[in-house]
Amino acid sequence: MSAVDFKAFVSELATQSGRAILPFFRAHHGTEDKSRGGVFDPVTEADKAGEVVMRRLIRQQFPQHGVLGEEFGSENTDAEYVWVLDPIDGTRAFISGIPVWGTLIGLTRQGAPVYGMMHQPFTGERFSGDGAEAHYEGPGGARRLRSRNTASLATATLMTTSPGLFEGEEAQAFGRVESQVRLSRYGCDCYAYCMLAAGQIDLVIESGLKPYDIVALIPIIEGAGGIVTSWDGGSAAGGGRVIAAANRSLHEAALALLAG
Amino acid sequence: MSAVDFKAFVSELATQSGRAILPFFRAHHGTEDKSRGGVFDPVTEADKAGEVVMRRLIRQQFPQHGVLGEEFGSENTDAEYVWVLDPIDGTRAFISGIPVWGTLIGLTRQGAPVYGMMHQPFTGERFSGDGAEAHYEGPGGARRLRSRNTASLATATLMTTSPGLFEGEEAQAFGRVESQVRLSRYGCDCYAYCMLAAGQIDLVIESGLKPYDIVALIPIIEGAGGIVTSWDGGSAAGGGRVIAAANRSLHEAALALLAG
Repeated sequence: MSAVDFKAFVSELATQSGRAILPFFRAHHGTEDKSRGGVFDPVTEADKAGEVVMRRLIRQQFPQHGVLGEEFGSENTDAEYVWVLDPIDGTRAFISGIPVWGTLIGLTRQGAPVYGMMHQPFTGERFSGDGAEAHYEGPGGARRLRSRNTASLATATLMTTSPGLFEGEEAQAFGRVESQVRLSRYGCDCYAYCMLAAGQIDLVIESGLKPYDIVALIPIIEGAGGIVTSWDGGSAAGGGRVIAAANRSLHEAALALLAG
Repeated sequence: MSAVDFKAFVSELATQSGRAILPFFRAHHGTEDKSRGGVFDPVTEADKAGEVVMRRLIRQQFPQHGVLGEEFGSENTDAEYVWVLDPIDGTRAFISGIPVWGTLIGLTRQGAPVYGMMHQPFTGERFSGDGAEAHYEGPGGARRLRSRNTASLATATLMTTSPGLFEGEEAQAFGRVESQVRLSRYGCDCYAYCMLAAGQIDLVIESGLKPYDIVALIPIIEGAGGIVTSWDGGSAAGGGRVIAAANRSLHEAALALLAG
């Protein structure tokens, strides 16, 4: 079974999880503090409702597959196919009412990301990719996604969720890149990677990611012609320090600055 | 003529400017650098197209009114009624493909903001207010906007477009507030003030605003029960250093911290 054959099923996961999540967006609802008094880390009922729906559909359709989810942990992750789910990537955007959060649905085969979708149910946007191609569907219609060919950092736009992601030397490394680009913007979580795939921005640099924050996005970015790796140029699928670039020359230039 | 009588006309301004602007969103288009080599300050063709449409409608319907716009300056601003227009507030979000920019349409009478609308044509959202009431229309239906009654900074969410807005002592003042709140987020321009009116967040603190960045938002924030002033507690209508708060006690607490 090729990754392409999972397309319709992933669309169904997006549709059903969107129905579970959207009623909670901008509704008054309790938030829970995972960190018990530490950094504020909101988890909404919506997050749980979305993951429950997706796990149920996966168990029905592909009982032999594994699942790694943000809310309910991992099951059977030694399977050939493993689903990597983040029902609400960008929970802080979600609780602030800002529609730049998204539902991330990724599929790995033998540990390698082979298909992914980012679904934004409020705007009705879907970004998907299989590593070879990437596609958009939304209010403006459907189209292929292609990252852009910005030649140098001096004309590039950089995004990150928050400069507060970076600690110590990481902050300095990020600052070296930020000081070279034309424009930097904060606050977009998964939406930033999708805008890179869409040819709107050029770089995303983050730290402290979990696998479920990035696995679904890798086949979208690569399918659009972009590059996504760890800061040392290895696989991004494990999360941690991640850099995505619209093209190879920007990727090389930014990696060199991150390395110091 | 009361501000309420302008409602239908403002809706028409929003509809027509949205039609002029939206085709440029996420389309490849040139950007212009207002600052000639200084800080990157994109101005899009969309910005100009939106303002041209609104000025034409105002001139036809209310030739005696004044207009102050971001792109084409001021005309007849001594008139009783003056329209204060920013066709794309959040041009950086716009060129990055992020749907948190908005069209700001404000009306002042004898210099005081009496009606305002923020229109986000991609998501189809309209936030409007007359200082006494504020309303929302969007994909989730129509409803009254009401800011929330968060009791203390320790449980508040703060937003600002970018920490880079603040220079010198301003950055320290902002930092004093930021260090006290539960959650702070960056990157939302006008959308942040609308989320405050919608009861999603509690504080917005910015600096370096122009009148057209804030005039339209004042009757929305006040209509929802919030407070918006300069950092020294005076009128926000002139722009500059602006603070919006969901309620009086948060406003007082934040003003005290800003003052040092």
